[in-house]
Amino acid sequence: MLYEINEKALKLESEGKKIIRLNLGDPDMTTPPEIVEAAYAAMKAGKTKYSSSYGELKLRQKIAEIHGVKAENVVITPGSKWAIFSTMFLTMKNGGNVIIPTPYWTAYDLITKSIGAQSKLLKTEMETGWKVDLDALENLIDSETKMIILNNPNNPTSKVMDDKTLEGIVEIANKKDIIVLSDEVYGAIAFNKTKSILDYGSDSKHIISNGFSKTFTMTGWRIGYIVANKMFIDQVTKLNQITFNNVPVFIQEAAMKGLELHKQIAENIKAKYRQRADLASKKLSATGFKFTQPDAPFYVFPKRDGLDGEKFTLDLLDRGVAVAPGTSFGDYREHFRISLTAPDNEIETGLDKICEATQ
Amino acid sequence: MLYEINEKALKLESEGKKIIRLNLGDPDMTTPPEIVEAAYAAMKAGKTKYSSSYGELKLRQKIAEIHGVKAENVVITPGSKWAIFSTMFLTMKNGGNVIIPTPYWTAYDLITKSIGAQSKLLKTEMETGWKVDLDALENLIDSETKMIILNNPNNPTSKVMDDKTLEGIVEIANKKDIIVLSDEVYGAIAFNKTKSILDYGSDSKHIISNGFSKTFTMTGWRIGYIVANKMFIDQVTKLNQITFNNVPVFIQEAAMKGLELHKQIAENIKAKYRQRADLASKKLSATGFKFTQPDAPFYVFPKRDGLDGEKFTLDLLDRGVAVAPGTSFGDYREHFRISLTAPDNEIETGLDKICEATQ
Repeated sequence: MLYEINEKALKLESEGKKIIRLNLGDPDMTTPPEIVEAAYAAMKAGKTKYSSSYGELKLRQKIAEIHGVKAENVVITPGSKWAIFSTMFLTMKNGGNVIIPTPYWTAYDLITKSIGAQSKLLKTEMETGWKVDLDALENLIDSETKMIILNNPNNPTSKVMDDKTLEGIVEIANKKDIIVLSDEVYGAIAFNKTKSILDYGSDSKHIISNGFSKTFTMTGWRIGYIVANKMFIDQVTKLNQITFNNVPVFIQEAAMKGLELHKQIAENIKAKYRQRADLASKKLSATGFKFTQPDAPFYVFPKRDGLDGEKFTLDLLDRGVAVAPGTSFGDYREHFRISLTAPDNEIETGLDKICEATQ
Repeated sequence: MLYEINEKALKLESEGKKIIRLNLGDPDMTTPPEIVEAAYAAMKAGKTKYSSSYGELKLRQKIAEIHGVKAENVVITPGSKWAIFSTMFLTMKNGGNVIIPTPYWTAYDLITKSIGAQSKLLKTEMETGWKVDLDALENLIDSETKMIILNNPNNPTSKVMDDKTLEGIVEIANKKDIIVLSDEVYGAIAFNKTKSILDYGSDSKHIISNGFSKTFTMTGWRIGYIVANKMFIDQVTKLNQITFNNVPVFIQEAAMKGLELHKQIAENIKAKYRQRADLASKKLSATGFKFTQPDAPFYVFPKRDGLDGEKFTLDLLDRGVAVAPGTSFGDYREHFRISLTAPDNEIETGLDKICEATQ
C-alpha cells in the first residue's frame, strides 16, 4: 500500500491540495552545494565516458578505508537498491529462500518474488524491542535457505540491532553456511555507534550494501556500493557489465566529495534528525502512542492498540498528511510509519494532525 | 576477448606506452556543452530527489513523439544496456531461448547466459551482405523460442537491414508469436534513413531499445529507453522500482536538452563519421581488405582470407593500436573490428599501422 498512498498523495497535490509528505524516506534538505559543484566540475572535465564496472578506483579505495577492507572488496552500484538486487539475484537466481526479519523494507520481498526465490518472514515485535529471536531464526532455516537479510539500523523502526543478537545471527549463519546481507544504509548517520556485519570478519561470505542517498542527501543521484569478498565483488562487476555498465563517473566524483566532507555533513544530518525525533517522541507520547525511541534518522513506527493502520492512513491523507501504513512492512496493522523528512514546520503540523486524528 | 584486449591496452597505457584506441565504441568527442549545462542547472534547481521509475513524463512525451507512440509506451532506463537486460530478463527469466543473428554485440549472449536462457546463433556472412536467411531463421525457431534480437544498424558491421528482410523477420515472429527486440541504438545517426521495427505496428509485442550514448556523445551518462506496448512498459517499470529506482532527473534533463538540439548534433556526428568511414574504406581497400561499406557511424568490420584475427589483434596492440578481434562477435576468425572513435589524426595513423601489419 506504500506506493498507492504515494500515488494518491501525488494526485491530491496535482489537484491543488497541500499534502504534508511524511510517507517517504526522501529528505527535505537539498544535496550539499559542494557535491553539486564537484559533479559539474567532473562533467566539464570530460568525465562523461564509459568507465569501469567496478567503479572508480579512488572512490573504492576511500570506501575500503572507511570499512577497513581493500579496494578489491568494494564495487560501486547505482544506489543501494542495485546492491541488494544484484546480491540477491546472484545468490538465488537458481532458487532458494531468504529469511527476512520484519518489519522490513518492502523491496526485499518484491526482489525475492521477481527472481523466483521464496521469502521466509521472521516477525519481531515492538513489545520485545524488535529483537530477533535466535531460536526462531535457526528453526526457520532449511536446506534451501541461502540468505538472511538484515536492515541495521532498521526501516521502519529506526532501531539498531544489539551486539549480542547480531553476533548470534552471524554465528548461526556461519554454522549453517548461509550468507548474511546487511543493508546498512542508515548506519553512518545512526545516533550512536553501531556495529557492522564486517566487525565479525571481512574475509567471510557476509555482504554489506550501503549507499550515499541517506548520508549525503543524494537520494536521486543513485549511487551506492557493496562490500564483500573479492570473488563476490567480481561476480557483481560481471553483472554490472551487462546491465548498466557503470555509475556515471561525475556522480562518483560527487560521492567522493561527499566522503571528504563526511564528518561535517553527517553531523548536521544527525543533529537535525535527533531534534526531529525528540519532537515526534514528545508529541506521540503525550497522545498515548507506543513506540521505541529511534536510534537513527528518518522514521518512527508508532502503534496504538486496536488501530486499523490502513484506514487511519487513508483518513489522515484526507486531512492533508501522508504517512505509510504498518502493513507495508509486514504484519503490523496497528502501526504506521512517519518519515521525519519534511521541513520542520510541516513535521510539527503533521504530528499535530496525526495526534488530532486519533483523539 | 574484447574485454581482455581493452584491459591489456589500459595496462600498456599505464606503463607509459601510447595506444591508439580503436577498440571501443566510445566517441572521442565530448558531450556537447549545452547538455552539460542543462544537467548542472537541473542539479542546482534541486532535481536530485527520488523520482518516477517510468522516467520523467516530459522526456517520455518527447521520445514518444519521435517514435510516433504515446508516453505510456516509453520507459527511461540507465543506458540501452538496461533496456536490453530488463527486456530479456522479463521475457526469459523462466527459461526459453533467443535467436541472435551474428555478428552480434557480446552483451546479448552474456545476458542470455546470466538469466539462464539459451542462445541460438544465426550466422550471417559478409559475402552475402550480412543478410539474415529467413528460411534458416524460421527453421531455428522451436517451441521454447521467446525472442529474436536484432541490432539494426549492426555492431560490428555498421550494416542497416534491408526493408524486405526486416519485414520478413517481423512476419515470421508474428506467425510464431515471438517477440522481436530491436536494438536501434545506432539508428538515429545512420547515414541513410533506416526502418524501425515500429514501422511494422506500434501496438504489437515487438520492442525497441535505444539510448542517448551514441547520438549525443553521452556514453558515460547511462541513459536509454524502451518503446513497447503499455503492459510491457509497466512490467519494466516494476523491475526498475526494485533495481535502480530511477535515472537521475538531472540526467534526464540533460537528455531532454540533447533531443532539443537533436538535428544539429546528429548531423555533426553523421558528417564526422561519414568522413572517417570514407578514409577507412580508402585505406583498407588499397591494402586488399574486404568489407561492406558502413551504413552508420562507428565501426568497420574488415576481413582478410586466412587471417588469424586474434593473433593479428595482439600483434597490432604491440604496434600501439587496439582493435577488437572478430571472434568477439561470433564465428569470425578472419575479421576484426575497427572503431572510428578516436581523434582524426589517430585514426589515420591507426589505419596506416593496420595496413602495414598485414603487408
